[in-house]
Amino acid sequence: MNNGGICDILKTIYTVAMTSSDTEKGRTMSETNIIRYRYGNPIKTDATVIDIPVTQGDPSGWTVSTADRTMTRTMSPDTIVYGLGETVRGINKRGWLYTSYNADDPHHEEGKHSLYASQNLLILDDIKSCCGLFVDDPGRVNFDIGYTDIDTLTISFEDMDADIYVMTGKTPDEIVTAFRRLTGSSYIPPKWAFGYGQSRWGYKSDDDIREVARRYAELNIPIDMIYMDIDYMDNYKVFTLDPERFPDLPGFVSEMKSQGIHVIPNTDPGVKIEPGYDIYEEGLEKGYYCKKKDGEELTAAVWPGKVHFPDFLNSEARKWFGDKYRIMTDADIDGFWNDMNEPAIFYTEETLSRVYAGLDELRSTEMDIWGFFKFKELLDSIDNNPEDYRRFYHDMDGTLVNHNRVHNLYSFNMTRAAGEAFARNNPGQEILLFSRASYTGAHRYGGVWTGDNMSWWSHLLLNIKQMPSLNMTGFLYSGADTGGFGADTTEDLMMRWVEFSMFTPLFRNHSALGTREQELYRFKRTDDFRHLIELRYALIPYIYGEFVRAARNDGMYIRPMAFVYRDNERFRSIEDQLMVGDSIMIAPVYEQNAVGRYVYLAEDMRMIRFRSFDDYDEEVLKAGDHYVPVALNEVLIFIRPGHRLPLAKPALRVGDIDFEDLTYIEG
Amino acid sequence: MNNGGICDILKTIYTVAMTSSDTEKGRTMSETNIIRYRYGNPIKTDATVIDIPVTQGDPSGWTVSTADRTMTRTMSPDTIVYGLGETVRGINKRGWLYTSYNADDPHHEEGKHSLYASQNLLILDDIKSCCGLFVDDPGRVNFDIGYTDIDTLTISFEDMDADIYVMTGKTPDEIVTAFRRLTGSSYIPPKWAFGYGQSRWGYKSDDDIREVARRYAELNIPIDMIYMDIDYMDNYKVFTLDPERFPDLPGFVSEMKSQGIHVIPNTDPGVKIEPGYDIYEEGLEKGYYCKKKDGEELTAAVWPGKVHFPDFLNSEARKWFGDKYRIMTDADIDGFWNDMNEPAIFYTEETLSRVYAGLDELRSTEMDIWGFFKFKELLDSIDNNPEDYRRFYHDMDGTLVNHNRVHNLYSFNMTRAAGEAFARNNPGQEILLFSRASYTGAHRYGGVWTGDNMSWWSHLLLNIKQMPSLNMTGFLYSGADTGGFGADTTEDLMMRWVEFSMFTPLFRNHSALGTREQELYRFKRTDDFRHLIELRYALIPYIYGEFVRAARNDGMYIRPMAFVYRDNERFRSIEDQLMVGDSIMIAPVYEQNAVGRYVYLAEDMRMIRFRSFDDYDEEVLKAGDHYVPVALNEVLIFIRPGHRLPLAKPALRVGDIDFEDLTYIEG
Repeated sequence: MNNGGICDILKTIYTVAMTSSDTEKGRTMSETNIIRYRYGNPIKTDATVIDIPVTQGDPSGWTVSTADRTMTRTMSPDTIVYGLGETVRGINKRGWLYTSYNADDPHHEEGKHSLYASQNLLILDDIKSCCGLFVDDPGRVNFDIGYTDIDTLTISFEDMDADIYVMTGKTPDEIVTAFRRLTGSSYIPPKWAFGYGQSRWGYKSDDDIREVARRYAELNIPIDMIYMDIDYMDNYKVFTLDPERFPDLPGFVSEMKSQGIHVIPNTDPGVKIEPGYDIYEEGLEKGYYCKKKDGEELTAAVWPGKVHFPDFLNSEARKWFGDKYRIMTDADIDGFWNDMNEPAIFYTEETLSRVYAGLDELRSTEMDIWGFFKFKELLDSIDNNPEDYRRFYHDMDGTLVNHNRVHNLYSFNMTRAAGEAFARNNPGQEILLFSRASYTGAHRYGGVWTGDNMSWWSHLLLNIKQMPSLNMTGFLYSGADTGGFGADTTEDLMMRWVEFSMFTPLFRNHSALGTREQELYRFKRTDDFRHLIELRYALIPYIYGEFVRAARNDGMYIRPMAFVYRDNERFRSIEDQLMVGDSIMIAPVYEQNAVGRYVYLAEDMRMIRFRSFDDYDEEVLKAGDHYVPVALNEVLIFIRPGHRLPLAKPALRVGDIDFEDLTYIEG
Repeated sequence: MNNGGICDILKTIYTVAMTSSDTEKGRTMSETNIIRYRYGNPIKTDATVIDIPVTQGDPSGWTVSTADRTMTRTMSPDTIVYGLGETVRGINKRGWLYTSYNADDPHHEEGKHSLYASQNLLILDDIKSCCGLFVDDPGRVNFDIGYTDIDTLTISFEDMDADIYVMTGKTPDEIVTAFRRLTGSSYIPPKWAFGYGQSRWGYKSDDDIREVARRYAELNIPIDMIYMDIDYMDNYKVFTLDPERFPDLPGFVSEMKSQGIHVIPNTDPGVKIEPGYDIYEEGLEKGYYCKKKDGEELTAAVWPGKVHFPDFLNSEARKWFGDKYRIMTDADIDGFWNDMNEPAIFYTEETLSRVYAGLDELRSTEMDIWGFFKFKELLDSIDNNPEDYRRFYHDMDGTLVNHNRVHNLYSFNMTRAAGEAFARNNPGQEILLFSRASYTGAHRYGGVWTGDNMSWWSHLLLNIKQMPSLNMTGFLYSGADTGGFGADTTEDLMMRWVEFSMFTPLFRNHSALGTREQELYRFKRTDDFRHLIELRYALIPYIYGEFVRAARNDGMYIRPMAFVYRDNERFRSIEDQLMVGDSIMIAPVYEQNAVGRYVYLAEDMRMIRFRSFDDYDEEVLKAGDHYVPVALNEVLIFIRPGHRLPLAKPALRVGDIDFEDLTYIEG
């Protein structure tokens, strides 16, 4: 094992060529080095967009055992490990075991190893040197980052068929850019997608959505999007609408657009098994569904009841499914959220039979207490069962591959199905697209939201920590369900969350059926909420500008402080202050009943304490530590010296913001 | 509704008489006022120890509706609401709905309303005035503290048969003392119970326990207790031992005592239904079990399989069960932890039949997706089902009362059964006793631990916040499962947790079967762990002294900062610094990968940064805010000016500490 610098001894240097389009994009990074190592026979994932020749040997500093299917290295006490995108815990990933295996699990607790998305990017930063590692393997990969042994990083593979890309640079920013060169530039959504959106699982009809629009209008709270969760469909059949509750989609979409509001439907992969349902029959006839070993289609149960899963890894099936989005875009729908695409499986016939058999066995005897635990375990094993993910196959353009081996590619290719279809069928049109599950590569086609979080203060903090990690991996258009999806929110949690989400590109208030209703008009302090949303709209010229610049330059929109202030030791462990774009730092409040917070500055900065876009205090704070009062309705923004923050006059819709009529607060 | 001071207009003043024993105890509080109001026909709970005449009318500032079974008041933005003992969220309880209904629920998440214990004490503090409210009702009571309406506090009752005690004082400390005068003084455990204890669900035999002792001895890490979780029993039968795995209890206890180690068995209430098992048969014959409406004993399943529950609310049954502890004390066992006494119910025959019937119904049809959710719901309804708590009755010395009505009294009276038996059968002997579930009054007989937490950083923080709240309610001997019970711990979490638990009276490392083994010798940095445990032992003269003083003075051992620095505005919202005794403040680190933390001081204080009892830095920090580096193996203690911190020479056992040979660090 090598205890030297992280990537100091490169055996072979491969310099990514600066293409003319790179130059056009104004990329400014210094020379970037990417080395590719190969173990076994990797699956072609399409995560990368450039082809780098394979270098023989093992990455410097790592001990590789193909027999144990592991690669291991020590970490010095100073090494920070960044990366992995949307995962639990901190920005510094040290001290836990992460498993890349997309999981439909709404309990985003510290003890979990997998969430919905898998981004196998690590950035090791020990100040002296930086090193990136991208593990291109779409199957199960474990990252033991000081969990088993506090000083050791071990990557272990279910199957060690992987391309390993080692990237070097002087700073984490350079690694990020190298990674993006390798994997492609990030998706840029339409400008209106930077507005505020309201969603709830439970809007059942066009009238429900009209009512949401009406109540926001009544309070003059800006809004650009209202989301249609699963209930808009006819029995949850993908690309259908319930004819009674949504009798005239084009008319309704047009009516809402006349108010400046985009309706954004939810799209799920599972196609309901229902004779007479054209999409189902077409897919079956063409053989586009995932099949079991015996050649029969896999039957799984999800929202529509029993479904088949389209084989997005097959290019023809991907095209076929992608073209179905036209059913919606022809009705002038211009935004989608792809959901349930890990894919979530409530149960399969096979698993249900196994569970029933187990129950019968337990029932036939006097159930002792271990029987009872067996009973509970049986029942817990019904959904998202690992065995079910081994039960079906993909036809990857001629090659049959077990799903488990390519699990993390499923959602990527659903997003890609949509993104490629939009480029094909709606050329020149900007369409909003984001997904729940993802793998590297999907960032070229759409964004992500962080899935079914909870109305917990700890999930607001988790959201704060996930944003820079998502940005590293290229998922710039991202955000969490503001206020929390599951569990019951409180007015103060919602307000503090709005005060953070106003800086995330995707800004959506979303909640689950059966939880407390949390549209902003449900609360008492609607004036405060209006002021906060107006502030977001006033900030959109800055937010959108910085976002697009980050996307075009293969950079990040939200960054850890330590990426920016490289020489500052303190920022290496500060995870609750973030850089948003190049000009401002934010310091959100994420604790209930807090009336202020600590802020550290590495340089003098102008602090703005906003109550609304035109009601704020300003003060230059000296470099160092400060305790800053922040009332429940207040938001802190710190402007870097030499930079300035543009503010527009807020409008009720993004389209009505005058991007030319800006005032500036100097840093 | 009255928006005035919290308790400013008292209709009747009842002054608690200072008894001679109070004076003997050296109680120094100023005049204490307690008023009792009565609604309906309250159950006699024995939570209180003095009899206060009932005052007519409603508490000042509250709107009471007996029809709605609610009492309501507004809260000013400045009002802090303390209390409720062991519950989720912050020290300031504002912004959530808490339900007093003891629950065996290991998921201590922010969204939960009930944990294992119910203490219906609120302390409202708006600086100008303080007011305490004790709701003596052992059934389900909800405390909506700004959840539904951010400015409103509503207490709602399932049955409004309650004694409401209103306590006034100039400070929260005075309210706490008044509450303790009302409900009795706190239990004081033996001195050795302030040592370090090791536990794990999974020690199966005396040899397993010998091995734990041996490995601690090998590393010279101090330890005074090793716990025997459920596996020591013969088929989980209470007051039995497996004859093969524990062939000679008295011999084993004596052997361990010769090493200075106390073995502490777990005790559960459910008595296994097993003909020939003497305790079962005796209880049945005497009619000491809880019965259903039809007079038949309730049969529930817990660890032993099917059990009956002793009726601890019946004084004879209580005495009978209490006397059984002699089986253990006769073997020289001198400590117990009462567990599962909410009571936890894995299932009842009735519920299991209902679930099976539901499953059969679902199975007979094609299960659609709502059927699937029904399926999941059915399965989730098996354990701790509210219907089961309505299914049985207590014979409260002649009065038949439905369990649901007195649910929170069950654990109290199990603890009392033990405590009264020890006083009766082991006079003069100090016996360690603590419980999982509790209700006010149980604090006179034993302590509590905070139940089945998780190996999460957020649960370390929760532990920090629970300690002062538990202290308010009289449960001074308390602590959490250090390192976390459920889920897998990490070395750094364990170390940070040890650094906090070293200040909690109950200091136990405990974990669940199937999780990562977390005895301190399992980790890499055992020197650091030894230094930390030694530091605890060096602190025991201080910890024990302050504990006993708090118990004797009806005060608190761990307090929120705002209780001590009454005029300081900042401390009103600081929940991660605590006063431990009268002389020191602690500021634990509870974030993974943190290398320091902020600390606020209201006065100049001497900060000691301990690496071990004899390796530390000291520095006087000025009043104000400080960022303080704290390496993973370091502990901060701040000494108040004019106070001093005694340090003993650590020993391997509490009994070997020389309480006379102390060095002092001056504040």
